[in-house]
Amino acid sequence: MATKKRKTGPMRGAKNEPGQASNSSFWIYGLHSARAALGNPRRKIRRILVTDRAQIELGQALARSDIGGPTLAAPDSISRMLPPGAVHQGVALLCEPLPVLDLEDTLSGASPSPRLVAVLDQVTDPHNEGAILRSAAAFGVAALIVQDRHSPPESGVLAKAASGALDIVPRVSVVNIARALEELGRLGFWRIALAADGDSTLREAAPAGDAAIVLGAEGVGLRRLVRERCDTSASIPMGGDMESLNVSNAAAIAFYELRRKP
Amino acid sequence: MATKKRKTGPMRGAKNEPGQASNSSFWIYGLHSARAALGNPRRKIRRILVTDRAQIELGQALARSDIGGPTLAAPDSISRMLPPGAVHQGVALLCEPLPVLDLEDTLSGASPSPRLVAVLDQVTDPHNEGAILRSAAAFGVAALIVQDRHSPPESGVLAKAASGALDIVPRVSVVNIARALEELGRLGFWRIALAADGDSTLREAAPAGDAAIVLGAEGVGLRRLVRERCDTSASIPMGGDMESLNVSNAAAIAFYELRRKP
Repeated sequence: MATKKRKTGPMRGAKNEPGQASNSSFWIYGLHSARAALGNPRRKIRRILVTDRAQIELGQALARSDIGGPTLAAPDSISRMLPPGAVHQGVALLCEPLPVLDLEDTLSGASPSPRLVAVLDQVTDPHNEGAILRSAAAFGVAALIVQDRHSPPESGVLAKAASGALDIVPRVSVVNIARALEELGRLGFWRIALAADGDSTLREAAPAGDAAIVLGAEGVGLRRLVRERCDTSASIPMGGDMESLNVSNAAAIAFYELRRKP
Repeated sequence: MATKKRKTGPMRGAKNEPGQASNSSFWIYGLHSARAALGNPRRKIRRILVTDRAQIELGQALARSDIGGPTLAAPDSISRMLPPGAVHQGVALLCEPLPVLDLEDTLSGASPSPRLVAVLDQVTDPHNEGAILRSAAAFGVAALIVQDRHSPPESGVLAKAASGALDIVPRVSVVNIARALEELGRLGFWRIALAADGDSTLREAAPAGDAAIVLGAEGVGLRRLVRERCDTSASIPMGGDMESLNVSNAAAIAFYELRRKP
C-alpha cells in the first residue's frame, strides 16, 4: 500500500541560527505526541501553541528552559497551521527533526536484555511506520532502523500515528539497509527476515539472545539483497484466507512473539 | 483516537428498485477490495468503472451475471467519483452495504474449529476496523461483531483498509453489544475482555474451545456493562514505555495468540 516515494528529503542536521526555523521544521500536534516531544531533551522546539485547556492539561511539561513560554491560541488558529482535519487537542509544537543517531552508539547502552531491534526496508507510509514505532515503545524495542531515502520524513502525521513514540524509540536512519544488517551481525544480533515463505515460524526462529526483525513493504516484500543479509527467514502462521497482514500488524505480532517469556 | 460518532446511519437493508442506487450506496475501490467484492455473491454491485489496464488485471472477476459489463473509464474520471487522494488502481464499484447477518446463523456453520470471534465495543475509526477485518481474515476469525450505531458505516475507506476482508469476514452488526455477548455465552464461547488491567495474560486466558475476544476503543476502553458480560479479562504483556497499543495492533496480537497451536 505504501508506494509513494519522497522526492526531496528534509535537511537533517542542517545548522540554523537559534530561533530560526529551518526548511525541515514541522508541527507536532496532539497531547500524546506533544507531551513526548516536550519531554525529549534531544527534540529542538521552536514554538509552542496551546489553548487554555491544553495548557492546564500539559502543566509542567510546558516549562522547557530552552525556549520561551507557550503562546496561547484559539483552537481554530492552531488548526490553520496544520493539515486539514488534524486532531490537535489544543496543542501544536514547531519542531526540528531529531539529530542523526549512530547505530552502534544507540545500541551499546540499550536495554532490556536481550535486545530487540526492528529494521524496515522501504516502508514509506507514515501511518504504518508511526504505528510500528508505537508498538516498538510498548514492547521495549531498542531501536527502529529505517533507510534514509525510502522512509517517511519526520512529520506531524508520523508523530501522531506514533502517539508519542517518535520521541521515545530511537529511530536510526541509515543510507544502506544491507550494510546496517552487516553491522547488526557484527554486534551479535540474530537477523530474522519476516516473509510469508520463511524457512520456519517466528517462534522457531526466535533466538535466546539479541534479535533483529526485518520487515519489508507490503506487496513488494523484502528486497533480495536485504534478505540475503539475514541469518534466517520466518513467517507468522495464520491459516486464514488473506495473503498478508498490514505491515504494522505484522510488526506488532513479531514484537510480541520475540519479547515473550518462554 | 476514534471519537467521531456517526450521526445518521445508512439505511441498511432498505429495499430499492433494481438498478436504482440507494442512499446508502458507496464506492469500493482498489484491486484487492474490488476483487473481493466482485467475488462475493452477497455484495450487490450497481456500477463498475475500470481502466483498460485494470480490466485486464481483473479479467474473469468482472463477469458477474447480475449486472451489465464494466464501463471503461480514464483514471481521472474514476478519481473524480472518489474522496481526494483515494488510491483506486483503476477500478471503482458502486455497491450496496451487505445484507444484515444474524449472529447465531453466522456462527453455526463457521470453521475452523475451535471458533474465534472478535467483538468491537465502539471502535469508530474505519482505518482501525478495516485493519482488524484484514487480520481477522488472515487468522480465520469466524465473525466480527460491531455495534450498529457506534461503528463506521460500510465505506470505501473501510473496504480499502480491510484490503478485501470486508467481503470475506462476516461482519455482524448488532444493536446491543452486551446482549450479543450474552448470546455468545449461550452458544458456548469463552468471552475474554482485552484490558491493560486484565486478570491474567492473554495466553493464560486462552480456552481450548470457542473464544470471543472483546476489544474497546482506544483511550476509553471497554464500557463497564460490556466488560461485566465477559467470563474473564486478559492483558497483552508488553514491558515497554507506552500505555497502550493501537487497537488494530492489539487485535492482531490477540488473534495470533488465540489461534496459535499449543
